[in-house]
Amino acid sequence: MALHFTSEQRLEDDVRERRFTLGEIPGILWTPASAPAPLILLGHPPLGLDKMYPRLAARARHAAADGFAAATIELPGSGDRPRWAAAEEARADLRRAREAGEPVSDEIIDALTLPLVDKAVPEWQATLDALLSLPDVGGPVGYSGGVISIGIRLAVVEPRIVAAGLFAGSYVPRAIFEQACQVTIPLHVLLQWDDEGNDRQAALDLFDAFGSAEKSLHANMGGHTGVPQHAGEGADRFFTRHLK
Amino acid sequence: MALHFTSEQRLEDDVRERRFTLGEIPGILWTPASAPAPLILLGHPPLGLDKMYPRLAARARHAAADGFAAATIELPGSGDRPRWAAAEEARADLRRAREAGEPVSDEIIDALTLPLVDKAVPEWQATLDALLSLPDVGGPVGYSGGVISIGIRLAVVEPRIVAAGLFAGSYVPRAIFEQACQVTIPLHVLLQWDDEGNDRQAALDLFDAFGSAEKSLHANMGGHTGVPQHAGEGADRFFTRHLK
Repeated sequence: MALHFTSEQRLEDDVRERRFTLGEIPGILWTPASAPAPLILLGHPPLGLDKMYPRLAARARHAAADGFAAATIELPGSGDRPRWAAAEEARADLRRAREAGEPVSDEIIDALTLPLVDKAVPEWQATLDALLSLPDVGGPVGYSGGVISIGIRLAVVEPRIVAAGLFAGSYVPRAIFEQACQVTIPLHVLLQWDDEGNDRQAALDLFDAFGSAEKSLHANMGGHTGVPQHAGEGADRFFTRHLK
Repeated sequence: MALHFTSEQRLEDDVRERRFTLGEIPGILWTPASAPAPLILLGHPPLGLDKMYPRLAARARHAAADGFAAATIELPGSGDRPRWAAAEEARADLRRAREAGEPVSDEIIDALTLPLVDKAVPEWQATLDALLSLPDVGGPVGYSGGVISIGIRLAVVEPRIVAAGLFAGSYVPRAIFEQACQVTIPLHVLLQWDDEGNDRQAALDLFDAFGSAEKSLHANMGGHTGVPQHAGEGADRFFTRHLK
């Protein structure tokens, strides 16, 4: 797939932000003044790049301040990208289950997540192919945040990713859970102790299952979006330890 | 109880180390060049100050580099301080239970810990009285590490302690566990995920029970003594956030 830059702007602190398309996939690349810089892939929930832009740009500026390039792409089925019917149905089922106060079934979790992972992971890999060929982006590569199932699968199949910061903030299909033991790169896992959209015990079991010799879990109080600033800074230092 | 300084030396980085006695209790005070400095009380396991000295001095130098004074005292029944028969028996019972691969009973945990907490906590408070009257030691005060049951009781009864870094590394008597909900100061809790001397689920339950609105859990791989350097640095930053 061919990479085309579509726009460019300078943010404060001399960070260069370039929007691109990779085939049909929109994305954004941020690079610091110092180049070539190691790359952090910024994962995000499937809410659309436009909606996520302020938080992504803030994370990218933090990364640039630490000397990292950062990049993200629109997830399949988000933003202006085509939906698929099964995902729409699964989302409706999830909403119904939550409103009824019922447990979210494995079927819903699988339908919601597995096709997304299957589509998104090769796209992240194609993005890596394209970005790593640019003169101002180098290795090694880290993956940060977003849908944890995508992070797990990427950590298993993509050897260019050498460290991952994961957010234990969404349901993980059994098939993905069972791959956790194959993850061997250093992991920095954030957990919101009272996350309304996440089962705490399942998150602890997942952390335990990862095969990595170096993994750390950082649990903080509050709900899904309440990650405290110092926890984000701890994740920044994790990447500095492992990508520099 | 009267505080008497018994020796003084300068460590590197202009850290001043003074040994003292408070009544019958030996202790050590480290102060940075900048004074008055907020104080961190350095807890430690009951293995004797002489044995613990290298690790305590290293922690004190880190604290001084962040602008903190640090102090520690010999625990009751450790070092040259008088033993008491019940604690010696409990220690022997613990050893026997572990060698036999049996669970450690509540009776052993209580006998090992409750008298130690009852004796140690007023001694730490008397140490605070004495040290806070010195011109180069100021508030606020943090408590760091050591026997977690002592840290919990201190956090409940001593209002001058405004933040605590605790190490989930030892058995906690039921009576102390039940006080955890009364702890309301910010907490930074370290957990070694595969700690041979600690029950992981009990440590997670204890973390959940703390009443503090701001508490964070930092779990790392490895056994009791394998706390990685970056985890210690995270605890340093916690005190900088809360004592400065």
